[in-house]
Amino acid sequence: MSHLFRRRTPINRPWFFKKVEYPSENSRRLCESAENLEVSSWKSMKGLVRCPANYAPLSPISFLERAAKVYRDRTSVVYGSLKFTWKETFVRCVKLASALTQLGISRGDVVATLAPNVPAMQELHFAVPMAGAVLCTLNTRHDSTMISVLLRHSEAKIIFVDHQLLHVARGAFDLLAENYVKPPILVRIREHNTTHPTSSVSSTYEYESFLAGGDAEFVVRRPRTERDPISINYTSGTTSRPKGVVYNHRGAYLNALATMSLHGMISLPVYLWTVPMFHCNGWCLIWGLAALGGTNVCLRHVSPKEIFDNIVVNQVTHMGGAPTVLNMIVNSSDRKQLPHKVEMMTGGAPPPPSILSKIEELGFRVSHLYGLTETYGPGTSCVWKPEWDSLPREEQLRLKARQGVEHYGLEEVDVRDSVTMESVPADGVTIGEIMFRGNTVMSGYLKDEKATEEAFAGGWFRSGDLAVKHEDGYVEMKDRLKDIVISGGENISTVEVETVLYRHPAVLEAAVVARPDNHWGQTPCAFVKLKEGFEVSSQEIIDFCRDHLPHYMAPRTVVFEDLPKTSTGKIQKFILREKAKALGSLF
Amino acid sequence: MSHLFRRRTPINRPWFFKKVEYPSENSRRLCESAENLEVSSWKSMKGLVRCPANYAPLSPISFLERAAKVYRDRTSVVYGSLKFTWKETFVRCVKLASALTQLGISRGDVVATLAPNVPAMQELHFAVPMAGAVLCTLNTRHDSTMISVLLRHSEAKIIFVDHQLLHVARGAFDLLAENYVKPPILVRIREHNTTHPTSSVSSTYEYESFLAGGDAEFVVRRPRTERDPISINYTSGTTSRPKGVVYNHRGAYLNALATMSLHGMISLPVYLWTVPMFHCNGWCLIWGLAALGGTNVCLRHVSPKEIFDNIVVNQVTHMGGAPTVLNMIVNSSDRKQLPHKVEMMTGGAPPPPSILSKIEELGFRVSHLYGLTETYGPGTSCVWKPEWDSLPREEQLRLKARQGVEHYGLEEVDVRDSVTMESVPADGVTIGEIMFRGNTVMSGYLKDEKATEEAFAGGWFRSGDLAVKHEDGYVEMKDRLKDIVISGGENISTVEVETVLYRHPAVLEAAVVARPDNHWGQTPCAFVKLKEGFEVSSQEIIDFCRDHLPHYMAPRTVVFEDLPKTSTGKIQKFILREKAKALGSLF
Repeated sequence: MSHLFRRRTPINRPWFFKKVEYPSENSRRLCESAENLEVSSWKSMKGLVRCPANYAPLSPISFLERAAKVYRDRTSVVYGSLKFTWKETFVRCVKLASALTQLGISRGDVVATLAPNVPAMQELHFAVPMAGAVLCTLNTRHDSTMISVLLRHSEAKIIFVDHQLLHVARGAFDLLAENYVKPPILVRIREHNTTHPTSSVSSTYEYESFLAGGDAEFVVRRPRTERDPISINYTSGTTSRPKGVVYNHRGAYLNALATMSLHGMISLPVYLWTVPMFHCNGWCLIWGLAALGGTNVCLRHVSPKEIFDNIVVNQVTHMGGAPTVLNMIVNSSDRKQLPHKVEMMTGGAPPPPSILSKIEELGFRVSHLYGLTETYGPGTSCVWKPEWDSLPREEQLRLKARQGVEHYGLEEVDVRDSVTMESVPADGVTIGEIMFRGNTVMSGYLKDEKATEEAFAGGWFRSGDLAVKHEDGYVEMKDRLKDIVISGGENISTVEVETVLYRHPAVLEAAVVARPDNHWGQTPCAFVKLKEGFEVSSQEIIDFCRDHLPHYMAPRTVVFEDLPKTSTGKIQKFILREKAKALGSLF
Repeated sequence: MSHLFRRRTPINRPWFFKKVEYPSENSRRLCESAENLEVSSWKSMKGLVRCPANYAPLSPISFLERAAKVYRDRTSVVYGSLKFTWKETFVRCVKLASALTQLGISRGDVVATLAPNVPAMQELHFAVPMAGAVLCTLNTRHDSTMISVLLRHSEAKIIFVDHQLLHVARGAFDLLAENYVKPPILVRIREHNTTHPTSSVSSTYEYESFLAGGDAEFVVRRPRTERDPISINYTSGTTSRPKGVVYNHRGAYLNALATMSLHGMISLPVYLWTVPMFHCNGWCLIWGLAALGGTNVCLRHVSPKEIFDNIVVNQVTHMGGAPTVLNMIVNSSDRKQLPHKVEMMTGGAPPPPSILSKIEELGFRVSHLYGLTETYGPGTSCVWKPEWDSLPREEQLRLKARQGVEHYGLEEVDVRDSVTMESVPADGVTIGEIMFRGNTVMSGYLKDEKATEEAFAGGWFRSGDLAVKHEDGYVEMKDRLKDIVISGGENISTVEVETVLYRHPAVLEAAVVARPDNHWGQTPCAFVKLKEGFEVSSQEIIDFCRDHLPHYMAPRTVVFEDLPKTSTGKIQKFILREKAKALGSLF
C-alpha cells in the first residue's frame, strides 16, 4: 500500500492554499469552491449515488471506443495510399496496447516517441493510454544529446522511433550507455509500403509486427482517476531548459472538445496534419477527431506542394499552422487558389497582418488561437464578431491578430499584474501578464515541484506572456516577459516592431531582441531574413521602421541571416539574444 | 460537522458493488476503474498538483460567466419585443441569485418554477445554481393536486409562478395548508410590458422587482463538488407515479456540450424554444446556448403560426419538438415554405416516416434523437451517414426513424437482456432493453433509494425501453417495456402498429395498447384521432392494418377519440390502458 500513499500526496494535497495570499475578491471566491472539493452540505438529498451507471472518469479513450461503433466505416487515417477506418484504428490500438503490456508496460510507465506526423503517431496517442501508460512525444528536431536527457528525465521504458530518426535515437542510447543508464526498448516505425534491411541489432522491434503480436481481445485499461497522467510534453525550447508538462485524462478530454469548437468543427471534419503531432499532442485534436469521426490526413514533410495536393485529393476541411507555415505557403511558387474553403487555425505567435491578408486571398479562412504547452495547446481564440464583417480590411486584420478570449474549457483567462495579481484595466494600454485558470491547465512539471509552484503562484497559471486587455475583453499579446526590450526606461514590444518589419516588401522573416547598451540599457536589435532576390541595407530597414513607429522603438541594429527555429516554427529568441549580447554595446 | 458526514454517505458510498454481480467481462472491466476512483499508482510523477489554477468543478455556470465577456453584446434572449444581451442576462442572473440568498436560500435548498418558455425560465436556470440552490421546474400541465404533491416532495422553499398559472399554484398552496404544510414563498412572473393588478396577497413577490432588489456585486456560489445537484426533473407522467430525477453540475455541463454537438451547433446559433424548458432543463440546451453565445427565442404558446413567424423574424437556425409538434406543423394551414434551412431535432417518440417526409419538404432538416429524463434528455441520435444520401427516400426515412447511437457525453448505450445483462446480437431482430452508462446519467431519484437501486441494477441505467440492435450498431426502439402487447405468446410492438396507422390518410394521431383477452391473453387496441373532415369505420382501419402487417399484429379494436397527452406531447398510454381494460375481453 505504501506507494499508493506516496503517490496521493503530490496529486491531492493542496499545498497551495497554505502558502498563497489571495489579494482580490475574485481569488477568494475560487478558494471557497476549491478548498471544499470533496465536501458538500446537501441536506435531504437521499437516493443519489455514484456508480458505474452514472460515473466514468473522463478520458479521450472513450472517443475512440465510440468512433469504432458510430463511425466504423469512415476513414480515420490517410497517409499517401494508406487508409484505415475507425474500426480498423480501434482494433490496431487495442492490439498495440496489448503488445505494450506484453512487453511489461504497466500503469504509469512512460512510453516515448520520436516520429513525424505518420499514422503510428495517431495510434500511439490512444494505444499508450489504453495500456494505462503515459505518452511522451519527443520533438523530432532534437539532437541525440537532448533526446538522451529527456529519456533519462522521463524514465521512458519504450521508445517508438521513425526509420528516418533511428540515428538520433541510437546516438542518444550511446550517451545513456556512457552514463551507465539502461536505454529504453526501441520499436522502429517503418515507412508504409517499403522494406528496410532487417536491423542488425536484434534487441529492437518493428512497429507492424510488434502490433500484430498484440491481442485484439485485450481489456483496455481505463484510468483509475480522470486526473491520472495521459502524456508528457517537453516544452519546445524557446528557452534553453525544457520542462516536462504533464497532461491528465480529464484535461485532454475537455481540451479536445473545446479545441474542436474553436476550429468550428461539427461532424466528419478532414484535418490536415501540418501542426506537429508531438507538439501539445497535436493541440489535443488527435483525440478530438475521434469524437467527431474526423479524418486525419498525415503528412511526413510540410511543404506547400504537399499541403495543396492533400487539400485537393482528400478534401481537407481544416488545418493549422504557425505563422511561419502561413508565410511559407504565401511565398511559395506552388501556391494556388483553393477549390473549396479551408479553415486554417494559426497560433504560436501573432500572425503578421500582411501574411493573413495574402493567405485569405487563396481561399483559407484564418482564425487565430493562442495557448501554451502548459494549457494543452489552444486556450484562447480571437472569436470573430459578425459586426466586424463590415469593417475596413486593415481593421479586420488588426482585430484578428489579437489573442482573443478563452474557450469554454477554461474558467478564465485574464491579464494581471504579476506582483499584485490585480487585473489590469481593459484600456488596451496597461501591460500585464496573461494568466489562465481552469481544467485545461497542466497537472504540473514532471519532477519539478519548484517550477510547478512558481507557475501556479497566486492561484493562476502564469504564462510569462505580456499583454493588454482591450475594452471588449479581448487580450492582445505584446511580448514574452523575457523578450521585451527596455530602452531608456520605455517598454518596447518586440512583436510590434516585428509587425512593421513584416510589412517591408523585402522581408521574409524577422525577429527583434534586446541588445545591451551602455547608455540606454537596451536597444532593439532586428534579425532579418530577406526574400530571395531582394537586397536592402540596414539603414533602409531602420528608416522604414522609423517611418512607421515611434523613433525609440525602431531597431538600432539590423542583422541579415537565417533565423533559428523550433520544429513548430517558433523563432528561438534565446539564441538571437545570445548573439545580440555578443555584439556588445552599440556605443 | 455532522450534517456533512450525513450527506457524504449517500453520494459517495458505492453501495452498488456489494450487491450486484457482474456477469460479463465488460462489466468487470467497469468495476476496476470505478472501484478505485480515488486511488492511483503513479510512481515517480512528482511535481503534479491540483489547485485553483488547474482544477475547477465542471458547472454550466462557467458558460454564462464566459458568455458575459465573449458574447457580451450578442442577443441572449428574445421574447416578442423584449431582448437581453448576454451581458445583461449575466447581470440579471447575479442579481436574481443575490435576491434568492437575501430571502434565505442557502446551499442545497430547492427553488421551484411553474412557467412556460418565458425569459424568466432561462434566467432561473443560471440564477438558482448561482445561489447554490437546486432548480425544480414543474410541468405547466399539472393540476393543483400534483403541484402540491411535488412541492411537498421536493421541499421547495420558493416557487416562481407565471401569471397565467397563479390559480394552479394557489390551489396547491391551499392543499398544502389543509395538510398543515407550510407553502413556499411565491414569486409572480408578470408578462413583459403589461401591468397586472397588484396582488391582494401581501406575502408574494413580483419577479422584476424581486430581481431588482438583488446585488449586482453578489459573489456567485459555485458548486463545492461537480456532483452537487443542480436540478430536479419530475418525470413527466407517462406513468402515474412521478419520480424526482436529480441532475448534477458535471452531467449538466457534459450533456450541454454533447447535445449541442448532436444539434450540429457551432457558433451563435438561434434556438426557438418549442421544447418545454421545464422538460429535462430544455435538453440542457439552456445551459449549452451560453457556451456558444446562442440566442434563446422564447415562446409562450407553441402554435404553427408563432413558429413560422419567429423563424422568419429571428432567423432561427435550430429548434426541437416531439413528433406531435411536427405533426401539428405539417397539418396546419399556417404552414409555409421556409426562407432558410432550420435544423429540427425530434425526440420523445420515433417520428412516423410520413410526417418526417412532409416536414422536410417545408425546409426543415430533421434529426432524430432519443433519451429519457434520467439521461438529461438526449442520449443518442441517429447520426446520418453520407452514403445514405443516395438511398431511396423511403429507405432514408426508415433509417432516420431509428434511435441511433450514443453521443460523446456517454460511455455506452447498449441493448441488453434485462435479466442476464448479456448484450443482444446485432441482428435487428432480438429484442432487449436499452441501457445507458456514463456521466450524463442522473444522480438518482430524489429520496427514493429503492427506485435508484432498481434503475441502476447491474451497473447500467435501465431505460425500460425495448429495442433491437442493427448490424451497424444503431439501436431501434420497439416499445416501452410496459407498452408491449403479448397476444397468443407473440410480442407485438405497438410502435410498429402505430407506424402503419399513421400511414392511413385519415389518421391524425394513433396509439395502440393491450386489451385484456380471455383467449389470446391480450389483443392490440387502437385509439385513433381522425383528421378534420374525415370519416372512416373501425373495420376500414383494421383492414388497412391487415394489408400492411402480419394479421396477428393488426388491432382487433379501434376507438375514435382525442388522445390524452403530456405537456411534452407524449401520449399517456397508461390512461388508454385503463380504458382498454375497462372495455373487457373481446370475446
